[in-house]
Amino acid sequence: ERNGFPEVIFSMGKTPEQVASIMNTIYKHSPIVLATRATQEHYKAVQELNPEAMYHAIAGCITLGSPSTALRPYKVSIVAAGTSDIPVAEEAVVTLDAIGITTERVYDVGVAGIHRLFAHIESLRQAQVVIVIAGMEGALPSVVGGLVSCPVIAVPTSVGYGAHFQGLAPLLTMLNSCASGITVVNIDNGFGAAIAAGNICKAIHNFTD
Amino acid sequence: ERNGFPEVIFSMGKTPEQVASIMNTIYKHSPIVLATRATQEHYKAVQELNPEAMYHAIAGCITLGSPSTALRPYKVSIVAAGTSDIPVAEEAVVTLDAIGITTERVYDVGVAGIHRLFAHIESLRQAQVVIVIAGMEGALPSVVGGLVSCPVIAVPTSVGYGAHFQGLAPLLTMLNSCASGITVVNIDNGFGAAIAAGNICKAIHNFTD
Amino acid sequence: ERNGFPEVIFSMGKTPEQVASIMNTIYKHSPIVLATRATQEHYKAVQELNPEAMYHAIAGCITLGSPSTALRPYKVSIVAAGTSDIPVAEEAVVTLDAIGITTERVYDVGVAGIHRLFAHIESLRQAQVVIVIAGMEGALPSVVGGLVSCPVIAVPTSVGYGAHFQGLAPLLTMLNSCASGITVVNIDNGFGAAIAAGNICKAIHNFTD
Amino acid sequence: ERNGFPEVIFSMGKTPEQVASIMNTIYKHSPIVLATRATQEHYKAVQELNPEAMYHAIAGCITLGSPSTALRPYKVSIVAAGTSDIPVAEEAVVTLDAIGITTERVYDVGVAGIHRLFAHIESLRQAQVVIVIAGMEGALPSVVGGLVSCPVIAVPTSVGYGAHFQGLAPLLTMLNSCASGITVVNIDNGFGAAIAAGNICKAIHNFTD
Amino acid sequence: ERNGFPEVIFSMGKTPEQVASIMNTIYKHSPIVLATRATQEHYKAVQELNPEAMYHAIAGCITLGSPSTALRPYKVSIVAAGTSDIPVAEEAVVTLDAIGITTERVYDVGVAGIHRLFAHIESLRQAQVVIVIAGMEGALPSVVGGLVSCPVIAVPTSVGYGAHFQGLAPLLTMLNSCASGITVVNIDNGFGAAIAAGNICKAIHNFTD
Amino acid sequence: ERNGFPEVIFSMGKTPEQVASIMNTIYKHSPIVLATRATQEHYKAVQELNPEAMYHAIAGCITLGSPSTALRPYKVSIVAAGTSDIPVAEEAVVTLDAIGITTERVYDVGVAGIHRLFAHIESLRQAQVVIVIAGMEGALPSVVGGLVSCPVIAVPTSVGYGAHFQGLAPLLTMLNSCASGITVVNIDNGFGAAIAAGNICKAIHNFTD
Amino acid sequence: ERNGFPEVIFSMGKTPEQVASIMNTIYKHSPIVLATRATQEHYKAVQELNPEAMYHAIAGCITLGSPSTALRPYKVSIVAAGTSDIPVAEEAVVTLDAIGITTERVYDVGVAGIHRLFAHIESLRQAQVVIVIAGMEGALPSVVGGLVSCPVIAVPTSVGYGAHFQGLAPLLTMLNSCASGITVVNIDNGFGAAIAAGNICKAIHNFTD
Amino acid sequence: ERNGFPEVIFSMGKTPEQVASIMNTIYKHSPIVLATRATQEHYKAVQELNPEAMYHAIAGCITLGSPSTALRPYKVSIVAAGTSDIPVAEEAVVTLDAIGITTERVYDVGVAGIHRLFAHIESLRQAQVVIVIAGMEGALPSVVGGLVSCPVIAVPTSVGYGAHFQGLAPLLTMLNSCASGITVVNIDNGFGAAIAAGNICKAIHNFTD
Ligand SMILES: Nc1ncnc2c1ncn2[C@@H]1O[C@H](COP(=O)(O)O)[C@@H](O)[C@H]1O
Ligand SMILES: Nc1ncnc2c1ncn2[C@@H]1O[C@H](COP(=O)(O)O)[C@@H](O)[C@H]1O
Ligand SMILES: Nc1ncnc2c1ncn2[C@@H]1O[C@H](COP(=O)(O)O)[C@@H](O)[C@H]1O
Ligand SMILES: Nc1ncnc2c1ncn2[C@@H]1O[C@H](COP(=O)(O)O)[C@@H](O)[C@H]1O
Ligand SMILES: [Mg+2]
Ligand SMILES: [Mg+2]
Ligand SMILES: [Mg+2]
Ligand SMILES: [Mg+2]
Ligand SMILES: [Mg+2]
Ligand SMILES: [Mg+2]
Ligand SMILES: [Mg+2]
Ligand SMILES: [Mg+2]
Repeated sequence: ERNGFPEVIFSMGKTPEQVASIMNTIYKHSPIVLATRATQEHYKAVQELNPEAMYHAIAGCITLGSPSTALRPYKVSIVAAGTSDIPVAEEAVVTLDAIGITTERVYDVGVAGIHRLFAHIESLRQAQVVIVIAGMEGALPSVVGGLVSCPVIAVPTSVGYGAHFQGLAPLLTMLNSCASGITVVNIDNGFGAAIAAGNICKAIHNFTD
Repeated sequence: ERNGFPEVIFSMGKTPEQVASIMNTIYKHSPIVLATRATQEHYKAVQELNPEAMYHAIAGCITLGSPSTALRPYKVSIVAAGTSDIPVAEEAVVTLDAIGITTERVYDVGVAGIHRLFAHIESLRQAQVVIVIAGMEGALPSVVGGLVSCPVIAVPTSVGYGAHFQGLAPLLTMLNSCASGITVVNIDNGFGAAIAAGNICKAIHNFTD
Repeated sequence: ERNGFPEVIFSMGKTPEQVASIMNTIYKHSPIVLATRATQEHYKAVQELNPEAMYHAIAGCITLGSPSTALRPYKVSIVAAGTSDIPVAEEAVVTLDAIGITTERVYDVGVAGIHRLFAHIESLRQAQVVIVIAGMEGALPSVVGGLVSCPVIAVPTSVGYGAHFQGLAPLLTMLNSCASGITVVNIDNGFGAAIAAGNICKAIHNFTD
Repeated sequence: ERNGFPEVIFSMGKTPEQVASIMNTIYKHSPIVLATRATQEHYKAVQELNPEAMYHAIAGCITLGSPSTALRPYKVSIVAAGTSDIPVAEEAVVTLDAIGITTERVYDVGVAGIHRLFAHIESLRQAQVVIVIAGMEGALPSVVGGLVSCPVIAVPTSVGYGAHFQGLAPLLTMLNSCASGITVVNIDNGFGAAIAAGNICKAIHNFTD
Repeated sequence: ERNGFPEVIFSMGKTPEQVASIMNTIYKHSPIVLATRATQEHYKAVQELNPEAMYHAIAGCITLGSPSTALRPYKVSIVAAGTSDIPVAEEAVVTLDAIGITTERVYDVGVAGIHRLFAHIESLRQAQVVIVIAGMEGALPSVVGGLVSCPVIAVPTSVGYGAHFQGLAPLLTMLNSCASGITVVNIDNGFGAAIAAGNICKAIHNFTD
Repeated sequence: ERNGFPEVIFSMGKTPEQVASIMNTIYKHSPIVLATRATQEHYKAVQELNPEAMYHAIAGCITLGSPSTALRPYKVSIVAAGTSDIPVAEEAVVTLDAIGITTERVYDVGVAGIHRLFAHIESLRQAQVVIVIAGMEGALPSVVGGLVSCPVIAVPTSVGYGAHFQGLAPLLTMLNSCASGITVVNIDNGFGAAIAAGNICKAIHNFTD
Repeated sequence: ERNGFPEVIFSMGKTPEQVASIMNTIYKHSPIVLATRATQEHYKAVQELNPEAMYHAIAGCITLGSPSTALRPYKVSIVAAGTSDIPVAEEAVVTLDAIGITTERVYDVGVAGIHRLFAHIESLRQAQVVIVIAGMEGALPSVVGGLVSCPVIAVPTSVGYGAHFQGLAPLLTMLNSCASGITVVNIDNGFGAAIAAGNICKAIHNFTD
Repeated sequence: ERNGFPEVIFSMGKTPEQVASIMNTIYKHSPIVLATRATQEHYKAVQELNPEAMYHAIAGCITLGSPSTALRPYKVSIVAAGTSDIPVAEEAVVTLDAIGITTERVYDVGVAGIHRLFAHIESLRQAQVVIVIAGMEGALPSVVGGLVSCPVIAVPTSVGYGAHFQGLAPLLTMLNSCASGITVVNIDNGFGAAIAAGNICKAIHNFTD
């Protein structure tokens, strides 16, 4: 891909055979290939063609190959509010792993457990980018944005019910955040947040080169 | 009124003469009358019939008479996030004043000035009810709800722009709050929050009687 | 928890094992633990670790342990409009039971059976708080609010079809209620209404202490 | 018009001259002409061509000529919840007057003044049709529908604020009413409700002929 | 029921046993009982207690007993646009049958087959009320409203896809109809339209008595 | 412009001077220039630089120069439902005039005056394209689509009130039209419909060349 | 059908038997019949009555008979952004095949593979109409509209997640396209786009005749 | 402010005197102060207290003082689609100027003028961050995202009409962009995009230090 990142297949709506064949083709000329939104069935088909493929079950991702090490010095922290937000967070982690960026997981630190967040502040402040993932009312990015001064990328999730409208509530919360400078990606789009974070790390890398 | 609270006129959509005449009629048999959403023009018409009427300009309220003192021992704290939320907060304050409940204003303590909120925690914890008013993303009630254990009533305001949709964003935020036990009233409805808080104070009063 | 209430696990989106393990851990240092939105499967896993666990099938709740008796003198009435609203009402009842507050069920008293509501008025008037649960057009809280003077907490439910939009219709009805002082929680959120009612009872308790 | 009713001009978006000229043309071959959504300016232009024209200021209607008396034995009651709903109610009244049907106004009987509604029940029960007009949460038609057994036509109004969304809240309430058999017209459409009520009176008239 | 119509059970969200038991209880003191939104399973449970129960499979209705004949002289025509709208139309027909009103089915006369509608005009003009049921863009009531002068009740259905939003499109169409006097009920609410039509027939009946 | 059509300036949000200067610049190398959504003020500024400019007041358009005659043999009929829809229709007419295509206006033929539409059928059938413009419920394109077999382009307008939502109602109607083959442009976008019609005429022209 | 196109059955919501019987009846007097939104089950029932029926699995279409050749000289290009959009594209292709128009498939040319689009430009420019099908953000029609000057018909698809709202996002994108002259059909409506394209080809054919 | 950036006053909803007084106070201990959403009236009041204040009329911003030079080596390109988007773009430019980051304006490069964008590609590729601002359908960020590999921040604007819904259309477009890695801020929020870009530049600066 244009920016040196792994090529990525969006598996939703593709048959296991289609995903397996596309990954196999790309893998011939790429050191690493990633498939997101992949099921166990997708994985089985991929594994048949490429037995070394790995399945990241919680993230719903398949990877083939190993990442470049160029961006290893940069760290992205992935902060997730609740247990149910972890699959989205893991999609971000696996994507960043495939890019070759160092990741830090800070999970289960939502409003109910905000003291747990405070225990990680020093570590968060050493990250180049913080990705914050939250469902329900989606207030966590505002809180994190008030604690760190690096770029913060917010990911609303579809975790909630009733007047949550499948993620609309936290999406609007994040777009209207008082903590200025927060940017937002689509509902449940852990992948997109990881690519955005990757682009920032690359911008640092390119400038210092 | 049924519950011993002042009678209240909603002035929006009524002529100055209508408001003046209704207030005057009620005042004959009531110690205190309140008109909300009232303009300077409404006030002028009221004043002509009842020169002792008072206009609360920021709240957009007119009062006639003085409150009962029965509920004076109870305190409601009114917390407002930003400068632009103050008119809604003042509508709550004037309504509570008319009911005869002690009020405490804690203004300008939004996310950007959250340390100012912390300075008031002890005082907030001595209130029987806390009303929290916020526009933008509306995250303040969740924060306050995490700090106090008394009833918290959240009021979303129409202060914001873009994907705020005239208050829809903070309304959804508050309905989905992780800080369980928060209840919500209509957008910009400072009056309704005050009546709800008044009902709680009366419940305390009735029980202890 | 901060306010002396039982700790609560939201089971939706968690595996039976996760729920069982969290409940077990908390139970070690807490007299009572509650899990909401729990299925029969969640219950089985909990029961394996803690055979004394109880499943409240209609409410979809699991409890471990017994409540404190401090708030027993306070009564919350739970009013439900229709048969299909009962699961939400029971979530409120089980939560209040776990807090240790006395509850009264007033079910099946919607518009079609409003005379049945009238038969309960005296009893409702002895409650410290009334929770009103309704789907369809959600008019019941306005009616109840006109009959009692204590705090009224309204819970819209997703029971309905067509232009009901999974609870949006009664949610808007309740937020716009002419019966001032009504406060609202999220669609189907019987738990949240119970915590809010519990906070009010505690406010009474704390003041009278 | 096809059904023997007066011809009607919808003035909104038409110039005073257009309205005056259309009314004048129709009046040449029709005993009565009605213009709805008309301003004082529309009226002035009409009056210049037809000095006998009458302006119904609250209804925003202009009439020319006098109605047939055939439907005089039938009565339609127009029930309005609040003062601000009266313009919509008056549009219905003036339209029914132009059709020649007997009307009864029952105004200011919303939830806050529901005892005033009860004072009119006997009279409402003698109407052939009841039109119920309400803004805010729009619960009045459900209440009226429970008290009468004749056809009930509900008109939501744009009177309200915040999560009212210019009439969406009472529109949804009325469409989801538990009081089965209620039918609904567009927000603020007093005219349409009157024509529907007129069609019912004509159906009675035609059958008994 | 208040207005002499059969009592009706809304089966959705009720168990087969609940529906069977309620129908059985009511049937003891009522000549006819109707259950709407009933499945084959509901029917089986009803049949066990009352073997004479009848299942109307397309309508999803169960009936017990036979209707009064008082309203037999009145006719309601039920017009349905497409094949997929027939279940909603049949719910209206079965409800009207249970009330004892004469019905006429005019099906499959949507825009694509509008000439088939024209073949029925004379018959439609002899009805006291016309119910028009349409999904897709919901234009049929406007067309019918232009052809008949009796009351027209419009029922939007959830039949459609994409920007149909489960019936929102035809609902808005019908509320904005240029053919004035059309009234509207909830999406898919054939039952409500039938009750409204029944109320009109009863109004005719009562007046002529 | 790429396709031989006049260059067009969208004046909304531009100052009179900006519009005048852009039109003047383009006119130097183009035989005809068009500005849409232009006010009288825009026109005055244009006229100062180019006195031969013409203002089409109802359409809100300014033209400079004269169209090519190549597409004169092709006819587009512009059908408008109501008086208030005419500004949108005229925007389409002026745009087609500027392209040099023959236009036919068929106005005031909405549902209330559908017989007037029938009087134009033969003429409509000789058009290469029909543009149908309607507000309210927007049913006219379905009717026209059933009468002609040429391409039909539908334009919803913002003319309406209440549950019309500024054009959303007719937009959804048109997108869900049963009369297959109808295509739709944005609300009030007479210009876009004219360009689409122009593209079709050019496709005919190019093929026959 | 009026315009010489094949008759079409919309199978969704119809039983296999209904579809088979309707197709069989029409086929007796029509050279070609098409059923859209048909499942394998629908096909089996059709095949039993008419063994020569063909099933187009990806398109979800059944055809009986062969098309007329009159429109064979005209070409419609069907451009699809992603793999998941192909079923909608194939519905358009099969419909155009049934009309007898020459088709060209240009698939998998979305933003990620835009260079593949450029490889087809010359071929696209020889088409009489281009249909562009896209989910996600739906930007492809704007890009194509900038490259060709023939009529462009845009079809939004429901392919996407989160703030995509089942096709609302690309629908709005296409309605607001800067590339003027683009017209839009309903979400996932490949069939409607094909009929619209067919109408354009017929307009060319009729004119040149 | 926490992150070394200028303090910012959001002037909307504040009086000129409030803004002037807040700026004056902050300016005593800050080298630079910025007010956004400021009118000419706000400026006059500020100028009275601080004559050296500057008004940026198109941006609607007031500045007092001069920026630090630490971030001067970093460049942010601000790309705007149309003339009407320039005020939002200028809010971003003035904010970045106040932070002390080098800016590059690339305006008027929307779909209609995409070749103008291509002329700037080399320059864009030397920026550390690109901010892309677009109304209408909001497709420009996807195009830019495909051309550069640095971080891209998208700002939807309220420029459009009809089914644009005041910026909802481009907001959804940008959230669903196929060009992965794009992040989004609120509608018309040029300020927020600039702070996000500033945070990225600071991250580069901090790392290289
Ligand atoms: N989880 C995801 N969410 C959104 N976009 C994705 C995701 N995974 C992959 N993509 C994008 O989808 C493109 C591949 O789409 P496809 O060609 O359909 O596999 C990649 O280039 C990514 O830009
Ligand atoms: N207030 C109103 N609301 C809705 N429709 C109306 C109203 N007044 C008149 N109409 C309808 O508008 C038609 C006249 O529209 P027009 O030809 O534009 O004057 C009448 O035949 C009525 O059906
Ligand atoms: N299909 C239906 N749609 C809407 N309301 C219905 C329907 N069927 C029955 N009802 C109403 O539901 C009430 C019974 O509700 P329930 O007590 O839950 O069975 C009846 O009195 C009717 O007013
Ligand atoms: N144009 C803007 N859009 C969104 N937020 C802004 C804007 N300008 C300033 N702000 C934020 O508003 C805060 C100041 O709000 P206030 O205290 O009400 O002046 C600043 O800290 C910024 O985070
Ligand atoms: Mg920060
Ligand atoms: Mg708390
Ligand atoms: Mg009360
Ligand atoms: Mg009734
Ligand atoms: Mg009629
Ligand atoms: Mg046609
Ligand atoms: Mg083009
Ligand atoms: Mg890129």
